[in-house]
Amino acid sequence: MTGPLETRTPSFSRIELAEVTSRSQTNLLGNIHGGEILKLADSAAGVVAQRHSGGPAVTAALDEMAFLEPVRVGDIVRTFAQINWAGRSSMEIGVRIETQPWDDTAESLHVASAYFVFVAIDGAGDARPVPGLRAETAEDERRMREAEIRRAHRLAKRAEIEAGRRS
Amino acid sequence: MTGPLETRTPSFSRIELAEVTSRSQTNLLGNIHGGEILKLADSAAGVVAQRHSGGPAVTAALDEMAFLEPVRVGDIVRTFAQINWAGRSSMEIGVRIETQPWDDTAESLHVASAYFVFVAIDGAGDARPVPGLRAETAEDERRMREAEIRRAHRLAKRAEIEAGRRS
Amino acid sequence: MTGPLETRTPSFSRIELAEVTSRSQTNLLGNIHGGEILKLADSAAGVVAQRHSGGPAVTAALDEMAFLEPVRVGDIVRTFAQINWAGRSSMEIGVRIETQPWDDTAESLHVASAYFVFVAIDGAGDARPVPGLRAETAEDERRMREAEIRRAHRLAKRAEIEAGRRS
Amino acid sequence: MTGPLETRTPSFSRIELAEVTSRSQTNLLGNIHGGEILKLADSAAGVVAQRHSGGPAVTAALDEMAFLEPVRVGDIVRTFAQINWAGRSSMEIGVRIETQPWDDTAESLHVASAYFVFVAIDGAGDARPVPGLRAETAEDERRMREAEIRRAHRLAKRAEIEAGRRS
Amino acid sequence: MTGPLETRTPSFSRIELAEVTSRSQTNLLGNIHGGEILKLADSAAGVVAQRHSGGPAVTAALDEMAFLEPVRVGDIVRTFAQINWAGRSSMEIGVRIETQPWDDTAESLHVASAYFVFVAIDGAGDARPVPGLRAETAEDERRMREAEIRRAHRLAKRAEIEAGRRS
Amino acid sequence: MTGPLETRTPSFSRIELAEVTSRSQTNLLGNIHGGEILKLADSAAGVVAQRHSGGPAVTAALDEMAFLEPVRVGDIVRTFAQINWAGRSSMEIGVRIETQPWDDTAESLHVASAYFVFVAIDGAGDARPVPGLRAETAEDERRMREAEIRRAHRLAKRAEIEAGRRS
Repeated sequence: MTGPLETRTPSFSRIELAEVTSRSQTNLLGNIHGGEILKLADSAAGVVAQRHSGGPAVTAALDEMAFLEPVRVGDIVRTFAQINWAGRSSMEIGVRIETQPWDDTAESLHVASAYFVFVAIDGAGDARPVPGLRAETAEDERRMREAEIRRAHRLAKRAEIEAGRRS
Repeated sequence: MTGPLETRTPSFSRIELAEVTSRSQTNLLGNIHGGEILKLADSAAGVVAQRHSGGPAVTAALDEMAFLEPVRVGDIVRTFAQINWAGRSSMEIGVRIETQPWDDTAESLHVASAYFVFVAIDGAGDARPVPGLRAETAEDERRMREAEIRRAHRLAKRAEIEAGRRS
Repeated sequence: MTGPLETRTPSFSRIELAEVTSRSQTNLLGNIHGGEILKLADSAAGVVAQRHSGGPAVTAALDEMAFLEPVRVGDIVRTFAQINWAGRSSMEIGVRIETQPWDDTAESLHVASAYFVFVAIDGAGDARPVPGLRAETAEDERRMREAEIRRAHRLAKRAEIEAGRRS
Repeated sequence: MTGPLETRTPSFSRIELAEVTSRSQTNLLGNIHGGEILKLADSAAGVVAQRHSGGPAVTAALDEMAFLEPVRVGDIVRTFAQINWAGRSSMEIGVRIETQPWDDTAESLHVASAYFVFVAIDGAGDARPVPGLRAETAEDERRMREAEIRRAHRLAKRAEIEAGRRS
Repeated sequence: MTGPLETRTPSFSRIELAEVTSRSQTNLLGNIHGGEILKLADSAAGVVAQRHSGGPAVTAALDEMAFLEPVRVGDIVRTFAQINWAGRSSMEIGVRIETQPWDDTAESLHVASAYFVFVAIDGAGDARPVPGLRAETAEDERRMREAEIRRAHRLAKRAEIEAGRRS
Repeated sequence: MTGPLETRTPSFSRIELAEVTSRSQTNLLGNIHGGEILKLADSAAGVVAQRHSGGPAVTAALDEMAFLEPVRVGDIVRTFAQINWAGRSSMEIGVRIETQPWDDTAESLHVASAYFVFVAIDGAGDARPVPGLRAETAEDERRMREAEIRRAHRLAKRAEIEAGRRS
């Protein structure tokens, strides 16, 4: 039997990705497809979940995500991802995506923010325990609190819709 | 000057897609990447938004989405998408994804459900008005009501988090 | 030793796929590449062959296939595939492809029809027996008869060309 | 008004392609997908049709094609394509595909042969006239004759099936 | 007539990219294909060249590049690119590639370094003048000197090989 | 214990590839991305290294490579690769790339030449011995001599830059 897992900080698993977008990712309007942005966000969140939990983890849910700006071909897309909250085997990962036009090094536009829930799994595909999360900064603590609010709202919204279906 | 747009029903723009998954879509665990499922859902929702609005539309937001089952290589992934609600220029599109193993024609597993908000745009990238939505069935009416609940919760959650930041 | 395989009907393995075409599939003219349509048809036929035979199957031949309409980026391409005939270890699969413009939900154009021959194989790559095919409807029976005609013509054409080479 | 187009020989437009296959092209069995071979053949035939006709050409039909050998990842796939026959605006292009294992420079296996019909089109998508085909060798003449046999069989098969449907 | 272009510093156009590698980029050994690393390096260098020159630029040459470590699926590949030297219309861009295993946040391995020469072009594809390069740090100056050495060696090597061919 | 490996000639492993370029390979200017050309060259060199050494080989270095002509969508890109020199476990592979416009069968433009160093590896990823190289023609001998010059210059350039850093 193994003892309790040691806790880890958000900075332990935080990552920042940056890619140049290509023509094969465009939609009919010539901009980068929203689905490509979603794929990029999920990919970054997955790396964070695997790092915090020290092994495989799969996407369990994606909370509300807004798209604020179009992304163009040739832009540099930056993806920042970090763990906000950890439960027994699930984790909330926050992702922020920015775009920087190739011809304007000064500007950086906020494209989207998303909150993913990942679940750590073992070789048989069953949930496995993950290390606790230890906030280091006031910012880390704010993120944990907001993750709790999102969690509560998600449960409340589900309950209300369920009740509406039964009535 | 054009008169008011005529209303349209959900069945006018409803679609059902079905694809065979391929090896190039797998993650490190050998299953289909969550990001590929997100891309597929966004793509289907986009077609519905374009059909209802009669022109270009872009992803504005993605509401909560849960992933219930893994998808394997060779499975047939079915994507059902329909409009639930229409505002002045935005639309909520519901997407349901199911997977059917290639070797079991009887079984069909619910993989994920998602709610996308799309905004119709004109050639200059500005929002343009969309036709109203006219429910035909009790099911259509239930979807409209639930879309309103999601909309209210989204606004409430934002307000609570905003308030938490200011305090 | 196993007894004879039970027969199966065409409806047991019939499938319908539907995909949104993307810009990365275009040829120099800006339409969807004929090779992409061929790949889609082969993919659908492969699923049917695997379902009828209950295991791996590989493309053995493709009979005449005509392309009647161009497919455009953003169209929904629908692929209908079903087994028409089954021999000892080979199967003829019929595929019909239609395209539906994204902006016209009423219209659906016939793009191409094809007849594939698949062979069921075992782990060593050798041919293995497949279940017999049991027609349920007059339509199923017509398809079986036409598959026999195609088979006879294929053999006759080969014989005539062989004879021409020897003379 | 332009005069009659000058005739061209098969060697004018003949091409030979060769590619190394990659892991992203594999099917569930780990071999190269039949659809990828079809796409390669169509692509080679398209270049020949464009060269003979001096402009855009689209796939109109694909005659019988047999797959004789599996293709493995890392193999070199060679595609030989040449025009066999030219009508007013259509052309038959013959394609032969061979595979050479990366670790055996001596061996070269015949994978498939196919006959494509391409139609030359103008800017409006209408059929346009193509240069006549002038055989140079006995081999060229044999190919023209066999193309005529395939053409006759295709028409006869269609007629027989049509008749069967009416009766 | 325009006056002389103002000079720019290396930090003006310097970029850092980071991507998660995927299964579709692997070679027969299961590692990331060397060609994918080359493509990534060229892509990063191209962005730097476009930023320094304020417009389109194309790859003119690639100097010696060594591959020191294999890159595995799921690793994060970091690409650092900066301009080392600028001539009339050509620029040398240095690229450094590092890999970080997904399961080891501490380690970062040096994979490869490369020196690209890009040429700025105008709409007609002709070379156009680029801003001068102004070193800010001792490191910038060292890079300029080493770029001059590489340039001299490139010219000398060409001359020696040319002389060998004539003798 | 195995005896010394028998020598092999350049013609034993020489290959020629040819591909039709596609729209998904284009850069912002609409031409084929330099990185795609690099990937193609590395891929061809890898096949030659594997053939000469009879097993897995990985890219160790890429010597100077110049890009002389742009490649357009639809062009046929020809890649010629052959081994120029073999050491104990490393090999220099020369690659020449030409492009042929689809609409001009006469012209063939020299796009780029590159010299790759590959190292043969065993199952554990360690270097393994490769067969010696036996020149057959005067051309083979010239290539060996020039490979030695490139090797010497590479070592000299490194030494000079190292010395410059220490001083």
